[in-house]
Amino acid sequence: MPPHRSPAAQPEIYLDDLAAGQTYPLGRRTVERDEIVTFARAWDPQPFHLDDEAGAASIYGRLIASGWHTVAIFMRLFAGNLLNHSAALGSPGVDELRWLKPVYPGDTLDARVEILEVKPFRSRPDRGAARLHCVVTNQQGDDVLTMIAVVMFRRRPEA
Amino acid sequence: MPPHRSPAAQPEIYLDDLAAGQTYPLGRRTVERDEIVTFARAWDPQPFHLDDEAGAASIYGRLIASGWHTVAIFMRLFAGNLLNHSAALGSPGVDELRWLKPVYPGDTLDARVEILEVKPFRSRPDRGAARLHCVVTNQQGDDVLTMIAVVMFRRRPEA
Repeated sequence: MPPHRSPAAQPEIYLDDLAAGQTYPLGRRTVERDEIVTFARAWDPQPFHLDDEAGAASIYGRLIASGWHTVAIFMRLFAGNLLNHSAALGSPGVDELRWLKPVYPGDTLDARVEILEVKPFRSRPDRGAARLHCVVTNQQGDDVLTMIAVVMFRRRPEA
Repeated sequence: MPPHRSPAAQPEIYLDDLAAGQTYPLGRRTVERDEIVTFARAWDPQPFHLDDEAGAASIYGRLIASGWHTVAIFMRLFAGNLLNHSAALGSPGVDELRWLKPVYPGDTLDARVEILEVKPFRSRPDRGAARLHCVVTNQQGDDVLTMIAVVMFRRRPEA
């Protein structure tokens, strides 16, 4: 994974640059076993995220990553490769978050967002929100995570 | 925060022990500035999660925690204080995740789940799913995070 680039002083992407139907590829990242266990110890210490034997005995058949770890990997790619080059202002929430397949040690995850809808705010004409379909696939091409996120962006300042 | 207790060899909570209307308190945790910045560097490196000056210049007025950090804190309390004493089998997803208020350095977050619905699976009579209203409040009593999670649990083995 490339090092995090500092946010541009002058954002490249404003609300006005987003349109329904666009897809932004966000890059990929391989998830190693150590990172899975470290994340789970800190934030989701369920046995099937921590221990190979417990993973093997679980309904998943192997150690699997926390679903929140998969979300975190998506977010890292989203922030580093899109939001930090944009005039993003944060998010009020997420809908329909689905963990569709387990993520196993050594999986390579590929992330993208598809723009579903872009709406300037009536009450705050300098900003608005985009609804995004967020997708993470594994090296077999299977979707492992999908969610609908709302992100607020500033509008492009008048020239 | 108390240390993570190992999952009981014999779970205390099965699907059959859950019923709509129950509330499970999950404990609390104070979020320090260092943890906010460390989490954001790893998983959500947007300027207003990393840097006091960028936080002050943002629409939030101060450095704020990543919304995914707030979710992770909820999950840590949920796993340590409920799931790891239960026959939980993981989750297919989450709906209506809402970040209602910013989380600032020094905030003390209190978590709970309320059981909305409990359904044995027809196709797999040894297990089922519960829909849970997850709530995180701050020290002012304001909700900062809510979400609806589905968690699968094994049923209590016949005596």
